[in-house]
Amino acid sequence: MYFERIYEEGLAQASYFVGCQATKDAIVIDPKRDVDTYLEIAKRKNFRIAFITETHIHADFLSGSRELAELTGARMLLSDEGGPDWQYSFPHEGLKDGDTFMVGNIKFEVMHTPGHTPEHISFLLTDTPASSRPSMIFTGDFVFVGDVGRPDLLEKAAGVEGARIIGAKQMFESLKRFKQLPDYIQVWPGHGAGSACGKALGAVPGSTVGYEKISNWALQYDEEEPFVKALLEGQPEPPVYFAMMKKLNKVERPVLSHVPRVDEWTIERLEKALEEGMTVVDTRSKMLFAYGHIPGTINIQNNNAFSNWAGWLLKYDEPVAVICGEHEIDSISRKLMRIGLDNLVGYFTNMDGWIETHVMEQLPHIEPCDLEDALKDDNTVVVDVRGVNEFLAGHIKGARHIHLGELSQRLDELDKNQRIIMHCAGGDRSSTACSILQKHGFKKVINLAGGYNAWLDKTLLSAS
Amino acid sequence: MYFERIYEEGLAQASYFVGCQATKDAIVIDPKRDVDTYLEIAKRKNFRIAFITETHIHADFLSGSRELAELTGARMLLSDEGGPDWQYSFPHEGLKDGDTFMVGNIKFEVMHTPGHTPEHISFLLTDTPASSRPSMIFTGDFVFVGDVGRPDLLEKAAGVEGARIIGAKQMFESLKRFKQLPDYIQVWPGHGAGSACGKALGAVPGSTVGYEKISNWALQYDEEEPFVKALLEGQPEPPVYFAMMKKLNKVERPVLSHVPRVDEWTIERLEKALEEGMTVVDTRSKMLFAYGHIPGTINIQNNNAFSNWAGWLLKYDEPVAVICGEHEIDSISRKLMRIGLDNLVGYFTNMDGWIETHVMEQLPHIEPCDLEDALKDDNTVVVDVRGVNEFLAGHIKGARHIHLGELSQRLDELDKNQRIIMHCAGGDRSSTACSILQKHGFKKVINLAGGYNAWLDKTLLSAS
Amino acid sequence: MYFERIYEEGLAQASYFVGCQATKDAIVIDPKRDVDTYLEIAKRKNFRIAFITETHIHADFLSGSRELAELTGARMLLSDEGGPDWQYSFPHEGLKDGDTFMVGNIKFEVMHTPGHTPEHISFLLTDTPASSRPSMIFTGDFVFVGDVGRPDLLEKAAGVEGARIIGAKQMFESLKRFKQLPDYIQVWPGHGAGSACGKALGAVPGSTVGYEKISNWALQYDEEEPFVKALLEGQPEPPVYFAMMKKLNKVERPVLSHVPRVDEWTIERLEKALEEGMTVVDTRSKMLFAYGHIPGTINIQNNNAFSNWAGWLLKYDEPVAVICGEHEIDSISRKLMRIGLDNLVGYFTNMDGWIETHVMEQLPHIEPCDLEDALKDDNTVVVDVRGVNEFLAGHIKGARHIHLGELSQRLDELDKNQRIIMHCAGGDRSSTACSILQKHGFKKVINLAGGYNAWLDKTLLSAS
Amino acid sequence: MYFERIYEEGLAQASYFVGCQATKDAIVIDPKRDVDTYLEIAKRKNFRIAFITETHIHADFLSGSRELAELTGARMLLSDEGGPDWQYSFPHEGLKDGDTFMVGNIKFEVMHTPGHTPEHISFLLTDTPASSRPSMIFTGDFVFVGDVGRPDLLEKAAGVEGARIIGAKQMFESLKRFKQLPDYIQVWPGHGAGSACGKALGAVPGSTVGYEKISNWALQYDEEEPFVKALLEGQPEPPVYFAMMKKLNKVERPVLSHVPRVDEWTIERLEKALEEGMTVVDTRSKMLFAYGHIPGTINIQNNNAFSNWAGWLLKYDEPVAVICGEHEIDSISRKLMRIGLDNLVGYFTNMDGWIETHVMEQLPHIEPCDLEDALKDDNTVVVDVRGVNEFLAGHIKGARHIHLGELSQRLDELDKNQRIIMHCAGGDRSSTACSILQKHGFKKVINLAGGYNAWLDKTLLSAS
Repeated sequence: MYFERIYEEGLAQASYFVGCQATKDAIVIDPKRDVDTYLEIAKRKNFRIAFITETHIHADFLSGSRELAELTGARMLLSDEGGPDWQYSFPHEGLKDGDTFMVGNIKFEVMHTPGHTPEHISFLLTDTPASSRPSMIFTGDFVFVGDVGRPDLLEKAAGVEGARIIGAKQMFESLKRFKQLPDYIQVWPGHGAGSACGKALGAVPGSTVGYEKISNWALQYDEEEPFVKALLEGQPEPPVYFAMMKKLNKVERPVLSHVPRVDEWTIERLEKALEEGMTVVDTRSKMLFAYGHIPGTINIQNNNAFSNWAGWLLKYDEPVAVICGEHEIDSISRKLMRIGLDNLVGYFTNMDGWIETHVMEQLPHIEPCDLEDALKDDNTVVVDVRGVNEFLAGHIKGARHIHLGELSQRLDELDKNQRIIMHCAGGDRSSTACSILQKHGFKKVINLAGGYNAWLDKTLLSAS
Repeated sequence: MYFERIYEEGLAQASYFVGCQATKDAIVIDPKRDVDTYLEIAKRKNFRIAFITETHIHADFLSGSRELAELTGARMLLSDEGGPDWQYSFPHEGLKDGDTFMVGNIKFEVMHTPGHTPEHISFLLTDTPASSRPSMIFTGDFVFVGDVGRPDLLEKAAGVEGARIIGAKQMFESLKRFKQLPDYIQVWPGHGAGSACGKALGAVPGSTVGYEKISNWALQYDEEEPFVKALLEGQPEPPVYFAMMKKLNKVERPVLSHVPRVDEWTIERLEKALEEGMTVVDTRSKMLFAYGHIPGTINIQNNNAFSNWAGWLLKYDEPVAVICGEHEIDSISRKLMRIGLDNLVGYFTNMDGWIETHVMEQLPHIEPCDLEDALKDDNTVVVDVRGVNEFLAGHIKGARHIHLGELSQRLDELDKNQRIIMHCAGGDRSSTACSILQKHGFKKVINLAGGYNAWLDKTLLSAS
Repeated sequence: MYFERIYEEGLAQASYFVGCQATKDAIVIDPKRDVDTYLEIAKRKNFRIAFITETHIHADFLSGSRELAELTGARMLLSDEGGPDWQYSFPHEGLKDGDTFMVGNIKFEVMHTPGHTPEHISFLLTDTPASSRPSMIFTGDFVFVGDVGRPDLLEKAAGVEGARIIGAKQMFESLKRFKQLPDYIQVWPGHGAGSACGKALGAVPGSTVGYEKISNWALQYDEEEPFVKALLEGQPEPPVYFAMMKKLNKVERPVLSHVPRVDEWTIERLEKALEEGMTVVDTRSKMLFAYGHIPGTINIQNNNAFSNWAGWLLKYDEPVAVICGEHEIDSISRKLMRIGLDNLVGYFTNMDGWIETHVMEQLPHIEPCDLEDALKDDNTVVVDVRGVNEFLAGHIKGARHIHLGELSQRLDELDKNQRIIMHCAGGDRSSTACSILQKHGFKKVINLAGGYNAWLDKTLLSAS
Repeated sequence: MYFERIYEEGLAQASYFVGCQATKDAIVIDPKRDVDTYLEIAKRKNFRIAFITETHIHADFLSGSRELAELTGARMLLSDEGGPDWQYSFPHEGLKDGDTFMVGNIKFEVMHTPGHTPEHISFLLTDTPASSRPSMIFTGDFVFVGDVGRPDLLEKAAGVEGARIIGAKQMFESLKRFKQLPDYIQVWPGHGAGSACGKALGAVPGSTVGYEKISNWALQYDEEEPFVKALLEGQPEPPVYFAMMKKLNKVERPVLSHVPRVDEWTIERLEKALEEGMTVVDTRSKMLFAYGHIPGTINIQNNNAFSNWAGWLLKYDEPVAVICGEHEIDSISRKLMRIGLDNLVGYFTNMDGWIETHVMEQLPHIEPCDLEDALKDDNTVVVDVRGVNEFLAGHIKGARHIHLGELSQRLDELDKNQRIIMHCAGGDRSSTACSILQKHGFKKVINLAGGYNAWLDKTLLSAS
């Protein structure tokens, strides 16, 4: 049996490629949308992708199952559990609790494990005929390393009232079944640290049933009620684009057979786009952005959080262009297509050429040690763009809280005549926030260097 | 003044990028269709492509003028000479003999130089204000290094009766004007050695008026008649796709803003395509093809002649797939798009995977030294697929002549029961020819190793 | 805790990178010699490689511990178990059974697990302070997925008399301790399928203690004697270079701080090298080699077995050059350096240029169906170059057995006047064997197409 | 005949590859030191590099003739003109005025053309047997497009007293011979715009004898004296490293057969190097450097002027490391090796990792509009680091002039207690200058944004 875990850092998401070496048949579990990765493995190891499956209808990325099916002719086996509201509405073969199927000689057994979502299933793998006992379970967003899937996404992101309580209770029941499995079974989950599908995911790729039983907080409860309470506590805001993902993953949509190639833009084309009001994302580092950027662009750095903030801030039905380095366009195209943002129409790399001929805008910053003085000025306000949980856990006195994801909708709460000091935890999100304000004509915007963390360090220091 | 010559070996074609360093305006002369090359230069040297021009309506490749205009907003300046049949039928600014225009401080003066085609123009460049005298002429397919443009393409490829005589006479007149130019002027032509737009082009990139006057055969004539005779003599068959190029370069057509990205195919997709009868071109070396190829594929090696034979052999309205190495698909896509073959739908690189699971077809060869014996068998025939001029200059006794470009249309002249020995000059074209026969069910096809040249060596050797 | 498994297919070898996210300290376990891989991870994930360790003195590849220590300043923690003959003779910090050390907050506990080698240790990892129980064990060549390390390498490759019995008994004792570990612990071994350090390794990357207890053949024995017998049975010949590796991994040797860059050779330089008798390895596919190769070169294809056969066939104190594709030289350089072959002096890619100007040698083959007839000729001999176990399991009647690794030393057993049909299992090793014979002046060498496997298929077919 | 011009922008230097297609022999004229470029051409076009020549002993870059000779076995044909002080002191075949040699069928005729240097020769090329008249001349640093070679380098850089007058007179005589050549001959010089070997070189790659006669300023003189005066006037300071180049190009020195591969450094290694006082060059953009750099590093941006300033500022006998982007190390290694700086020992790309854990130094700037006010402070001084000619042509009132190349030697002329505003023409050289001051403990260093040019614009603006 061949086994490969494919981990996509920008989504903190794991998919799995499992192949039978005897028959050369393979399955992909929870494929991401830029499916060339799987075709490449199949080619390198000489497998035929004959099956595709998913643990559940994903909310945080666009599934690549249909892309992969189109390119390979593989069979799509998808959950038919979860009731009428949770049925995939495009052609597939349905899976129910207790179903089994073979990928060559490898046996997959379906376990219905609702909680994160109603239709969620897991797969127990047995490497027949060598063994008659299962060696692995693919748990998707059911059991993570050190955590379990959050049951409140639907309610928060998709707006399904009361869903989170029902989900939490289902999770409790599903975990009971999980505890029945033998200790030695390997656990391969669908996400790692950094995913918004849980709150405390570990960074280790996999675990075992036995180890999770003794170390995973969620498996320490014998009573439903305290478990439900603990599970729902302290979950971060889910990105708004999750609702869109959920929908697109369930219904018919156009299939994208490869990573789109976008045009590199000349200075003239970028000028034209800016004039027309197109959204242009400057993906360079916040340092470079602060030192000088093209007026009207917004800053979302091309790091592991790019997909997340692009999903929050960009619109699905409007064209977008990016400013990036020469070698980054492929990574950026993938990050966007993975969450269904298929409207990337151009990229621009020639900042040197631009600088020679245009005036740049700067983004000033203030050091934490100067903040106290700055706030003595009545006309200065501090805005904290972190998550609500972060804000509640501690914040700068007098700071107003506006989550970065809501900033564009709440601009009228701010006053262009005031000096506005923006901050987040470390300076990344507030760079984006400042750029949004500048784009909307705020002239007196300042970034707090190092964010809340640096401010805290300074405060603790001066207190001691 | 900035000057760069862009030479595309697969077309033996030169285009030119000329920029004014004072104003940053630039012009591209005779752009090929994969115009990212010019955008890259503009970016690297910080120019704005503000003008595009052509020396004439090309027959051997698809012009990229409209692609480039769309991407840059540049003005297209095109010949309005040549009479009603030779007018570009899409929007442009017209040029006539004697017109001048400025690219920044650089002056371009239009000379009408018909002969190769009726509307053909050349450009005299003066680097003002530094100089008041021209330093260069861009001659397109008028004067090459050591040759002049052939006037018979229209008649042969486009089927315009009698055009070649008229063209040859116009060429004689145009050359008279050329001789009036000062010796010191640099000559930058549109083609180099290997182009089908002339018969004896030199490999040196450029020349001078004075040197051509003393060394170019076509400038040694004072009388029209012998010049016309000499010019029309011994011109090779123009590829049939030239007619299509001529047409597409004159009329409205869809614009392709970048090199298309094609899907890499799995084994399964290739199997399906072959079953459906799609044309699949194996672009590997003739050696590898002979050692083992996928039945039903035809062999056109990915070398400098690829564009030419793809133009001859592929259909403009049918999809095509290619077999190639991992790193070759970009080069192949460009070669096809440059001649307007925009129907490349997939590429396949996984020959190792295929070989493991399929039966391969071989292409046997015969050594020249064994040919005489082989021909003693009555049931054996030799087919020479070279050009008619090559055939007339000398051939194997008894060989039948079928130009490779016509082979598919003349298959019924051959007998599947006979043993057929194919040859060309060196073995490349005959590998393609053999593959066409095999694809059409001929089982007894043999390639003459080393072709006519090797046979001649052997014959001369044994004669001495 | 950050965990990454680095799998090198050419050695079927796994190394591990484990980092503490709190302190940014990391450890590398069993590094291969091209250590840029680990530096790259450290940079990407922002770790400092502070520790390096090994499970044992490797025999199948050159350890990169010293390279990595030199480049990072990391501490080298190495086994001091195994007695006086098994001590690393270069500076390091010693580890003994029961020792523990911390990598940031991650605790490593040393278990002495002799059997494969006397000094072999394993590492139990506990992710403190989050957990007080171990979650993983790094077993090196002690326990693999589905197999255990072979104890006979020393005796066979290093010539230590009687060592294999002692090793097998130690392995039995070590496995007893392994069985005491909790079922849920993840097992991360040092090799995967294809390694010569065991005989039946699984292809799945990791396992668990509990699953191995029920599925690994070696853990099913309660008695020592039958275990020892089973363990020593049917182990393949270890490559001769293993003795050299063992030695170089124990003593001082020059450190190579990066993958060496070798010169690309012109045709003239290759000609000169061949004249001087240098070993030139043609790493192209056996198909291309058979169709035509440069006389005097030997064929070792650049696939996952390349390191192994290079180790068998090349000399450590002689320069070597390779023929390869444009993009392969980095992979080949790494494969050679990983087993300490640091004498690569040039590479040649220009086969097209060579073919134009030189005579090529062919390597003829015979189809299995023609073998019976061929053997009717008294002057024809079949040579089987597979391993002795493969030969004993079944062979062509009358075939002589000479292991490929010994062929160069046993050429005088063969007769240049006879027609020699070489074969292995599938045709790869026999292509190498044929090339060695051709290089030594054997003119009548033939490869059996598809090898023993194809012959068997044919025989079974005709028998049915 | 095959002709290719190889232009290296970082040196503004042209070398030439000329091959005879009949015999496959080729020559390289004035090779740069990273000679893989020529080997690549030879391979691509199937030539054998059989000859290497130089127009003269170069002062601005290290010749690659010996590297290329070692790799190809080609014959080195070098000037034996110029008298005893100008003889190459390593093995070669000597060339004198009037000598001819053949590269295949291509005839080269040697013209002794002293002026720039005493031993300087040019090559007239005749493409026999096709033509009996020369078509090209390779003029090296004799005649450029629009300029001629400067005769004062020896005196200024190599310290040869009085040499410039003698050279200027020789140049006058050599130009007389040049004027005798036919107008139609193509002129291919050794440098383009930006080279320090002349003062007004054109950007067009080549020219013709006739065109230069009418447009090159240096060919307009009939009298020696005014010519000499004009020629010597206004030549810029030659870089000090020119003397070293001159020497190394004449004598035996170690040959470097390929571009050296340097180690990528970890954060720890860079820390150690800085502690030890090693020179570390930050090659990032001046913007990034200003925003934050590692204390103790100096800024030389990786652009076309990098070789020049590296030559000025780095020492030939001390190790150096660079900070650069991921993809830049090859280009930087080449730029350094081309001028013989072979002591590059490491490169560092992980600025993000560094920033997370270290304090960065900033480089403040002042806007031109604020300069006047700033200078009212008595304790502020302006330093102009441009060339002396630039300074003499106009400068900011009160500015002190210290050429960037001399700054390190003249630090004691500056006062650490003063505020020092550095400027050059546009801000690049002054960024380097500021970094040198900061490295030496000057804390109050400020860069004038946009340099003299921006200041002039502002001044003119406010004056109008």
